[in-house]
Amino acid sequence: MTALITVPRGLKNVAVTDTAIGDVRGDEGFYHYRRYDATQLAQSSTFEDVWHLMLLRELPDADRSAEFAKRVGELRVLDGATVDLLRRIVTPDVEPLAALRVALAAEGLRERPLFDLPDAERLQSALRYTALTPSIIAAAHRLARGLDVLDADPAAGHAADYLRMATGTADDEAVSALQTYLVTTVDHGFNASTFAGRVVASSGSDMTSSLLGALGAFLGPLHGGAPGRALAALEAIGDPANTREWVRDRIAAGHVIMGFGHAVYRTHDPRAELLKAVVTSRYDSPLVRQAVAVEAEIESAMAELKPDRQLYANVEFYAGVLMHEVGLPPAMFTPTFAVARIVGWTANILEQTAEGKIIRPSARYVGPEPRR
Amino acid sequence: MTALITVPRGLKNVAVTDTAIGDVRGDEGFYHYRRYDATQLAQSSTFEDVWHLMLLRELPDADRSAEFAKRVGELRVLDGATVDLLRRIVTPDVEPLAALRVALAAEGLRERPLFDLPDAERLQSALRYTALTPSIIAAAHRLARGLDVLDADPAAGHAADYLRMATGTADDEAVSALQTYLVTTVDHGFNASTFAGRVVASSGSDMTSSLLGALGAFLGPLHGGAPGRALAALEAIGDPANTREWVRDRIAAGHVIMGFGHAVYRTHDPRAELLKAVVTSRYDSPLVRQAVAVEAEIESAMAELKPDRQLYANVEFYAGVLMHEVGLPPAMFTPTFAVARIVGWTANILEQTAEGKIIRPSARYVGPEPRR
Repeated sequence: MTALITVPRGLKNVAVTDTAIGDVRGDEGFYHYRRYDATQLAQSSTFEDVWHLMLLRELPDADRSAEFAKRVGELRVLDGATVDLLRRIVTPDVEPLAALRVALAAEGLRERPLFDLPDAERLQSALRYTALTPSIIAAAHRLARGLDVLDADPAAGHAADYLRMATGTADDEAVSALQTYLVTTVDHGFNASTFAGRVVASSGSDMTSSLLGALGAFLGPLHGGAPGRALAALEAIGDPANTREWVRDRIAAGHVIMGFGHAVYRTHDPRAELLKAVVTSRYDSPLVRQAVAVEAEIESAMAELKPDRQLYANVEFYAGVLMHEVGLPPAMFTPTFAVARIVGWTANILEQTAEGKIIRPSARYVGPEPRR
Repeated sequence: MTALITVPRGLKNVAVTDTAIGDVRGDEGFYHYRRYDATQLAQSSTFEDVWHLMLLRELPDADRSAEFAKRVGELRVLDGATVDLLRRIVTPDVEPLAALRVALAAEGLRERPLFDLPDAERLQSALRYTALTPSIIAAAHRLARGLDVLDADPAAGHAADYLRMATGTADDEAVSALQTYLVTTVDHGFNASTFAGRVVASSGSDMTSSLLGALGAFLGPLHGGAPGRALAALEAIGDPANTREWVRDRIAAGHVIMGFGHAVYRTHDPRAELLKAVVTSRYDSPLVRQAVAVEAEIESAMAELKPDRQLYANVEFYAGVLMHEVGLPPAMFTPTFAVARIVGWTANILEQTAEGKIIRPSARYVGPEPRR
């Protein structure tokens, strides 16, 4: 019998594949997209240009940039059947990402396996689903609140159009802040949802199936990055003077501190630092001032209560503050994260498809000996 | 920096978790469900009893068997909204499993993460989706052909009701043969779709998401077990006397032989042997005689052409023959496989959820050194 190979639980630190998409260097507080510093891109590039970089492997020149923005802008427009479907299924108790799951499945009703498609069609499929996602999420959000669906504007930028479709308005400052957040979270190494998408894709399956796998893992409470939790913690704390007591209570109850700590970073999370800089430089609001004060209090409380473990604000902490300031309601925080992350999912799904090797591990049977 | 652990590509033979659900012993040609020989169960137990074994960890006594059959029989009934949805989305070019993907997503519109549910609700969710699947698949199949949807009969057996809903009739002999096939394919170790379902579930996600992950991997051309391929090969061969030449051509062209060989079995596939016994003992048809003759020819041709590699018929080979004989059209072969396999998926998803540990491996970055 073939001997099984033992690895750490949860496959922690197990390299399941090679990738050229990007990497997270947890000890350095650094991550990159195809060799470009991600936080630098987030301050200097449009969402579309970074999307082009992720899927087409290079930053576009001015002509290609315009061409790509036009292409994905047109793909952002929902057809009537999709809007009708959303009207039928969305009620006030339906979350946008649950509606997205149905809409993606419906978009894939006649889809062919990626394994059977030429490269150009694989790419088109990736771009189409990524472009549709903000439109579907915004429509589902508005329908759940009894509001009219706002059509996409193919000539607008991706971040601007999403914010307008979701909230009805999109001023330049808010669009710029939101775009920084979106670029910051396009990808982040081999997170759980990315891996789930690659596992599905490894059987040669279609883009819809692979995205539903990624989205499914993304919806789990153990998947990181849900900015609503950190904002809820800020609300629960209220006056920053309450922070130390709140932290002490949470630790005593064995809970984690929302918005703090990360599976990979062993130093400051570069995403949190960038988003903090964005909100503090642009928004002089009570919430921003509270967040900064609470962050300092939590770091100091943790240093006192758990001196063996350094704990820094992660991307969740300032993402919730940023999204609140640009006008998005908490129910749209995690969906907005998905609007960005689907770029990373599709890039990884296409890379996995090109690899052409099924991911099929084993399990160790630990039940009673079978009867023969 | 944390060193990455190197493992074989595709995680082959890597034990990613412990399981008490079952095991495949490839060298012995043996597999079991919770210590019971699966091929024995397939000859002696109802689908519902094996389903009970997989989810509730023991074969039921007579009272529990009746109670469980009643419970899942009632869950098999589709509500009007689901049938309406299927009517809207199914056209002649929509495959039943593509429709199932939408219907499962729609059933999960208001679903909560498994991580947040008590055990009884986790189980109920598993049973509900498994019970609904044959009804959804049969309805989608009939709608695609312009036929009326046949309602489920909660008092019927699962295999009988599925066959009747799909084809309009279900005589005892066909139901018995189909039930044997279904029990045979309920689970089979850590196959790719099962692993995909567990990866999604490992983030604490909901049943719909986890099943969409499993189904997504199942739809890939590299996932084994599509019985239509083997039947298509029989059609392509025609007269068994053509077999040797056909095999020679396929090998020369570098193609695999559909219905032969398996990733784990190094001897006869016990599922193929059982299904062969079922069809040869019950159906004296030209197709069955052809299949037996072609199987012998292929084994002999392979022994001559590839003496270093033994190749035996796998579950696909006689599954297609069996399904044809019970009256299912080829478009329903893979969907019928899913009707069975969802039992294994749900059992694995619940086991993974109980483990409560996210599966989050790493990847090795092999692109150019990032610019700093």
